Amino acid sequence: MMEISARQIAEILNGTIEGDPDVKVNHLSKIEEGVEGSISFLSNPLYTHYIYSTQASITIVNNDFYPTQPISSTLIKVEKAEMAFAKLLEFYNQIKNNKSGISEKCTISKSAKIGTNLYIGDFTFIGDNAKIGDNVKIYPQVYIGDNSVIGDNTTIFAGVKIYSDNLIGKDCIIHAGTIIGSDGFRFAPQNGENLKIAQIGNVIIEDDVEIGANCAIDRATLGSTIIRKGVKFDNLIHIAHNVEVGEYSFIAANSIIAGSTKIGKNCMLAGQVGIIGHLTIADGTIIAAQSGISKSIKKTNETFMGSPAFEINDYRKSYIHFKNFSKILERLDKLEKELNQRNS
Amino acid sequence: MMEISARQIAEILNGTIEGDPDVKVNHLSKIEEGVEGSISFLSNPLYTHYIYSTQASITIVNNDFYPTQPISSTLIKVEKAEMAFAKLLEFYNQIKNNKSGISEKCTISKSAKIGTNLYIGDFTFIGDNAKIGDNVKIYPQVYIGDNSVIGDNTTIFAGVKIYSDNLIGKDCIIHAGTIIGSDGFRFAPQNGENLKIAQIGNVIIEDDVEIGANCAIDRATLGSTIIRKGVKFDNLIHIAHNVEVGEYSFIAANSIIAGSTKIGKNCMLAGQVGIIGHLTIADGTIIAAQSGISKSIKKTNETFMGSPAFEINDYRKSYIHFKNFSKILERLDKLEKELNQRNS
Amino acid sequence: MMEISARQIAEILNGTIEGDPDVKVNHLSKIEEGVEGSISFLSNPLYTHYIYSTQASITIVNNDFYPTQPISSTLIKVEKAEMAFAKLLEFYNQIKNNKSGISEKCTISKSAKIGTNLYIGDFTFIGDNAKIGDNVKIYPQVYIGDNSVIGDNTTIFAGVKIYSDNLIGKDCIIHAGTIIGSDGFRFAPQNGENLKIAQIGNVIIEDDVEIGANCAIDRATLGSTIIRKGVKFDNLIHIAHNVEVGEYSFIAANSIIAGSTKIGKNCMLAGQVGIIGHLTIADGTIIAAQSGISKSIKKTNETFMGSPAFEINDYRKSYIHFKNFSKILERLDKLEKELNQRNS
Repeated sequence: MMEISARQIAEILNGTIEGDPDVKVNHLSKIEEGVEGSISFLSNPLYTHYIYSTQASITIVNNDFYPTQPISSTLIKVEKAEMAFAKLLEFYNQIKNNKSGISEKCTISKSAKIGTNLYIGDFTFIGDNAKIGDNVKIYPQVYIGDNSVIGDNTTIFAGVKIYSDNLIGKDCIIHAGTIIGSDGFRFAPQNGENLKIAQIGNVIIEDDVEIGANCAIDRATLGSTIIRKGVKFDNLIHIAHNVEVGEYSFIAANSIIAGSTKIGKNCMLAGQVGIIGHLTIADGTIIAAQSGISKSIKKTNETFMGSPAFEINDYRKSYIHFKNFSKILERLDKLEKELNQRNS
Repeated sequence: MMEISARQIAEILNGTIEGDPDVKVNHLSKIEEGVEGSISFLSNPLYTHYIYSTQASITIVNNDFYPTQPISSTLIKVEKAEMAFAKLLEFYNQIKNNKSGISEKCTISKSAKIGTNLYIGDFTFIGDNAKIGDNVKIYPQVYIGDNSVIGDNTTIFAGVKIYSDNLIGKDCIIHAGTIIGSDGFRFAPQNGENLKIAQIGNVIIEDDVEIGANCAIDRATLGSTIIRKGVKFDNLIHIAHNVEVGEYSFIAANSIIAGSTKIGKNCMLAGQVGIIGHLTIADGTIIAAQSGISKSIKKTNETFMGSPAFEINDYRKSYIHFKNFSKILERLDKLEKELNQRNS
Repeated sequence: MMEISARQIAEILNGTIEGDPDVKVNHLSKIEEGVEGSISFLSNPLYTHYIYSTQASITIVNNDFYPTQPISSTLIKVEKAEMAFAKLLEFYNQIKNNKSGISEKCTISKSAKIGTNLYIGDFTFIGDNAKIGDNVKIYPQVYIGDNSVIGDNTTIFAGVKIYSDNLIGKDCIIHAGTIIGSDGFRFAPQNGENLKIAQIGNVIIEDDVEIGANCAIDRATLGSTIIRKGVKFDNLIHIAHNVEVGEYSFIAANSIIAGSTKIGKNCMLAGQVGIIGHLTIADGTIIAAQSGISKSIKKTNETFMGSPAFEINDYRKSYIHFKNFSKILERLDKLEKELNQRNS
């Protein structure tokens, strides 16, 4: 990363300096891992003691922080240290991803319509009648099939494959290796074989969605598989044909949702969750890691666990008994013995 | 999609028209979601009431359907409406995937042998001595290693990577991002380190197999990992070295099969199933979602659930008791109390 | 594979021939699957009977093996037959992967520094200031982002995507489709939406690591996600931001580790294991397939099972009771009936 001085950072963050304004840093660190050349921040009072020992060259602190011992780090005081640091993170992230220009080694169909201020990397393929919005970044080796649409300000990392006819919204991020619009898994048994049912629907991804690496989102048989506004997916997630995921829902790594299931708004699925097909999951549902959902959930804002899952507190009680099962059986053995002795 | 008239569709389907033969449609829809410009179908009697309200411009119906109320939709009467609609789906699907020609931006080794009537997309790589059959479609950014063989009429979507020495049959479909022929996961512990065991076998995929997106099928250590005729895989499936999957078996998303296990014919694995190595699974076995198989299954056509799995009805009974575990413990507490009272 | 004679193999393995030194083979086989033209080995005494019936043209045996019946196979006698065969496997593997030269169809940034004796395949992209060591093999369609470093003797198979700023060690193998350095899954809820927290850390992979196909390893928010020396990953594994996996640990297919968790040395995770975030797992921990770890593990060399997991023998006992739950309930029913009868 590039080097930047305390003075420059204070300007970016609209903060005031206590210490050496000319000290320079070239990376960001946690306060407990601060080293010379790094900038850190202090926000949580539980971490205050670290500021007296940190080797970070610069530390961002809240305006109301007053040291009680000498500090070697140069301080930059701001209104909210944590948010200021997040701003710095974002600043560095933009430098990292600051790509522009259209490669001469990519393919863009003559019938595709492309916007302005684009990055399109080497060996990327954009098919017939595709539409690419403004300020879009498409990294190398991406495939965008015929008629697919990419909204303004969206970033698509290396190697993503988007089949034909899919719609991706604005301000989305799609991570490397993810597949969008592959065929739904539908076959009709016939004479001992399995006839493929053609999958001619598509995938619609609304605005402000982020999708992790190596996910697979199938197109609908008819109609659309829909990922609503603000949804966030982790890595290695499978979404089947005709699924709908409601606004602002979160899905952690390696979860799968089977065909035609509708997930509500603001739901949270932890890692390795499975949901069977044709269900409806109420808004605000939370599902614990490795759980399996086999029935629709109608009441909002409940939490579930187990495979098949039920209410989480009930599950935890049953599971404690399961762990103690040998002791419970000893009690049963003892009761039987007592009763037998009386009978004899 | 292109526009097509009722008259043209009736010709394709060998049907008769009731209504306006010149009305045009440009997409397919379910009857309950029909809109102007769409074509739908009615087959299931439970859906009959929808035909009096559907906005679909055309509806395909069985020859023996006679409306009892006025209908706005133009009807096309055929012998079997559902199969006629599937034919239309397939017709549209072929238009969607109607690619042809060999890109000037791909690499085909001089020693490779390629058939006729091919589609080979941009940035695809075909290695030394590879053989590509007739009517094969290979989308952009595919990698086909040395000596690998692709049978006639097979379609390989964007970004698939096939290592060297693997055999893919005829009439197969391999979805984007899938890896075939990566090394099996085998190491020999030695002096606290782990020596890699070279994996020099291959993968054989027989005819009429479909493999979903982002799967990983490892090559054999020696011999072959084999996917038999008619097998269908969903997305994100892992198949280890030397596994064999029997004819017409189905594997749903995100299931994994460990090394050297043999799966019988006509088996069905639901989502997120795991099977450990060196097992034999009988023909017709069904395994419920998220189950784990730790022993060979010898009796055919049984259904299993749980981790480790056992017979599904037994599992369900045990699981109902597990859900009621707190109540069962209350009964045990009560018995103990009663017996203690008598003892005192 | 190329043809090779018994005489040539005996030279490679420093062995002695009994039989025809001119017989030729072109592939390797197990002794029980030996056919004309194949070479096999006999090491395990339990397999000795196969040597009298094998059709393998050549069989490698230990020096102390003396046949008690006639054998059709030519024998090559060596000190340790199993290790000699492994050496042959490796010999064939090197032929299989014997690629060299830098493609004219790849992109290498002018600011990248590349070593000697390289293979860089078609349509591969190497970004600004990237560093590629000596004897590195990079197959087609790989993406290596800006500032990333690949150590000497490392092999990267087709379609791997490595984001910017990541460090890969020496003697590593990364299989096709794997993603390294994608953003960690971190968002801050704000006004009903979810603000992305920029992920500006990286991934460090130390020496002698092998990573399977279609894995996803996220970069750290700050600092590094670290995969230590000698670690081996199977396919479809997810590693979240800021995770650390200790030296020589093994992770089987489709396991996931959530953010900031530290795995010790010499651990073994079986398939489909999930570990939640911010835990510490002791050295030598073994985790059974499909288990979920929800608490830190402090004692070394223990084995766990279940979701949430506990000590494996305790789990197995509880699970046996779970399978017998209906019978246990019958005993409880009987006790209640007996007691009720006495009460009446």
